[in-house]
Amino acid sequence: MRIARYAKDDSIHYGVVELEADGGSYPDTVSELEGDPFAGPVHLAGPRHSLADVRLLAPVLPRSKVIGIAKNSVPGQADPPAPTEPPVIFLKPNTSVIGPDEAIQLPTLSSDTVLEAELAVVIGRICRAVPIERVPEVIFGYTVTNDVTARDLIQPGNPWGLAKAWDTFTPLGPWIVTHLSLEEASNLGVEAKVDEHLVTQGRTKGLIHPIAELVSFASSVMTLLPGDVILTAAPGGGAPIRAGQTVSIEVEEIGVLTNPVIGEV
Amino acid sequence: MRIARYAKDDSIHYGVVELEADGGSYPDTVSELEGDPFAGPVHLAGPRHSLADVRLLAPVLPRSKVIGIAKNSVPGQADPPAPTEPPVIFLKPNTSVIGPDEAIQLPTLSSDTVLEAELAVVIGRICRAVPIERVPEVIFGYTVTNDVTARDLIQPGNPWGLAKAWDTFTPLGPWIVTHLSLEEASNLGVEAKVDEHLVTQGRTKGLIHPIAELVSFASSVMTLLPGDVILTAAPGGGAPIRAGQTVSIEVEEIGVLTNPVIGEV
Repeated sequence: MRIARYAKDDSIHYGVVELEADGGSYPDTVSELEGDPFAGPVHLAGPRHSLADVRLLAPVLPRSKVIGIAKNSVPGQADPPAPTEPPVIFLKPNTSVIGPDEAIQLPTLSSDTVLEAELAVVIGRICRAVPIERVPEVIFGYTVTNDVTARDLIQPGNPWGLAKAWDTFTPLGPWIVTHLSLEEASNLGVEAKVDEHLVTQGRTKGLIHPIAELVSFASSVMTLLPGDVILTAAPGGGAPIRAGQTVSIEVEEIGVLTNPVIGEV
Repeated sequence: MRIARYAKDDSIHYGVVELEADGGSYPDTVSELEGDPFAGPVHLAGPRHSLADVRLLAPVLPRSKVIGIAKNSVPGQADPPAPTEPPVIFLKPNTSVIGPDEAIQLPTLSSDTVLEAELAVVIGRICRAVPIERVPEVIFGYTVTNDVTARDLIQPGNPWGLAKAWDTFTPLGPWIVTHLSLEEASNLGVEAKVDEHLVTQGRTKGLIHPIAELVSFASSVMTLLPGDVILTAAPGGGAPIRAGQTVSIEVEEIGVLTNPVIGEV
């Protein structure tokens, strides 16, 4: 199932997306769900719309946290080296989240902001200290993210808040896919295009700390809550973005997340 | 006014605290407020309890973010040096927040966890890019925090998530004081005691980037939301804590925040 959050006629809903490519007899559609999938059971209740007639939003608004992972790949290397250190964790605020087609705003303070194309894990249950073998039970689904980073605002020897926390720096979407197994999610192609030109590519199996370990480790530090998002790091590394460009991130089996880039207003 | 959040008879309320020390004719009390002070207008409506008969909770549960500031003092130096760099920002998750008398749990992964005694600013309004002269308009009030840090989990050259993000690492309380001016808040004594022994002390005027600048700068990076908390950094530096100890942080004119320390369970 693909779960989207969307605006239609000034109200916001969750819905289930069906694509023509699935072999259905409709063009792409979204069918309204009654209820909040992060708060309890939902069921199909409302109207079905053409996907073109709604505005997709970030599929989850994290009420608690977006956890980022740094230095989790060696771009260009298909098989990752064995991990020698615990995963490197940082946090992004929920105020940095935007949805598909919303603009990434570059801060005037930065002249080296990059895209990072990543698979994002969406948590579905309150959990703490989850053993690796039970990680599938706490995952709600997967979406696509661009972990935008002002690389020149990393202050050497200091935390990375200033490089990562800006408004608009966490595009999420276009929807959450709930039907992939953890094994499938751990070997998906991830690529970024700028104005239709391929700039980075990799596979989630290229991550040094695999997805299951990232979720387990993060949960050993912090209680995870429904709607928390873990950005698993960019297997293809970063690539510069500039105002006026359009960035598309694609994760195989999930979808394409596209955002224009503008200067700070 | 002092605004507390407390549990009484299995329900949670906001209330106004009055202390005998204010010259009242009662012992210390809390009077129930109707409404959520971060969501709209409130008024005194409910019963008055002896403060001893309620359990104080963290006075705010940040729905968005706790912003921390690093390297913002030279402990032992009363007059700070002039700032040469922008403030160093990091984030702590709202899952790290605990209230008065709740236990700080030391991670087994760390053998050098420290207290950091700080003034915390609580934001009252949605705001972005607030000029310094308008900062007083967006401050709801001030409380006390202990920005607990696993110093040995700072991974050199990397973000500080693993040092700062653990559950229980952000005690807040005992209440939010709303009657201090920004000028008054910018010159308060801050001290930490471990088992009644003074271990750090300083004044908020010893901060390199003063409070008004921290709020203004943070708002230039991130939209601030009601209930967001900014930890202004420890003017007296850090001091080690160990399981079995009790830590008390006092900020002059605000109150004392006390938490026991336990090993990870």
